[in-house]
Amino acid sequence: MIPDGDDRERLVCPDCGFVQYENPKIVVGSVVRFEDRILMCRRAIMPRRGFWTLPAGYLELNETPMDGARREAWEEARARIDIDALLAVYDVPRISQVQLIWRATLAGTAFAPGPESLEVRLFAWEDIPWDELAFPTVRWALRDAAQIGMRQDFAARTNPQGETADG
Amino acid sequence: MIPDGDDRERLVCPDCGFVQYENPKIVVGSVVRFEDRILMCRRAIMPRRGFWTLPAGYLELNETPMDGARREAWEEARARIDIDALLAVYDVPRISQVQLIWRATLAGTAFAPGPESLEVRLFAWEDIPWDELAFPTVRWALRDAAQIGMRQDFAARTNPQGETADG
Repeated sequence: MIPDGDDRERLVCPDCGFVQYENPKIVVGSVVRFEDRILMCRRAIMPRRGFWTLPAGYLELNETPMDGARREAWEEARARIDIDALLAVYDVPRISQVQLIWRATLAGTAFAPGPESLEVRLFAWEDIPWDELAFPTVRWALRDAAQIGMRQDFAARTNPQGETADG
Repeated sequence: MIPDGDDRERLVCPDCGFVQYENPKIVVGSVVRFEDRILMCRRAIMPRRGFWTLPAGYLELNETPMDGARREAWEEARARIDIDALLAVYDVPRISQVQLIWRATLAGTAFAPGPESLEVRLFAWEDIPWDELAFPTVRWALRDAAQIGMRQDFAARTNPQGETADG
């Protein structure tokens, strides 16, 4: 039903009137550099098992987006990272997802597959497996990161014109 | 309980095993310019009724963050806006909120209070009611917008060091 003072349907308990708002989900992730290479993870889980992705996942309650990106880098790639800037905000409205992707560097040299990764590797730009990426937003983030390089002043990127995150 | 393969407590239905994840909420808003002035709204609703804010509110399901910011500008200030860049990402982890604030200009000259606003005004920078702002993030956004001006290449801002969004 549509609650009083609202303008769209919500899940409302018919007994107590509690409104269960459904909210979009925030994904936090990072493009992590080590010298001239980029840290990538091969997914051990569905969807897109076996395909390559960036360390990223859902932001938890009471967590800052940067803390979330650091946590995901640890969980998926056993990597400690230093975040320096917001690279991009991508949205996938079909699945109500907003992605905050940070630019980071690997702190130290250690990394290893976490439980959700089959393999973790550093790729030179020319070796990135473009045909085996897990999601379109991974391609966007890598391309935007390459184009921005290490510039300090750059506008955070958004979805590229004319490309869909569903394809 | 903690579901299999997870590492923190979730709400789980004891009968069917459905996991109700709770997610942080996304607020979308904008700093809207008209010539040298900024569009602000005086809140008609709690919390902080009577205090000044920027047009902003919760992102809806299946909505892009820019569409959400445009919708909020219409709902709260009856303003049509043109968005040009992401100004800042602020987080308020205590209440699990992430704010995406865009830089925009007023399209046309019309604006008026929507149902959640007592009053809508254009303020010159020197006339902004700094002591009557609704939330610390409003102050941050105004300050960051003033500092960035109309530059095209700038890093999206995050929470200022040493300031809390709860104060």
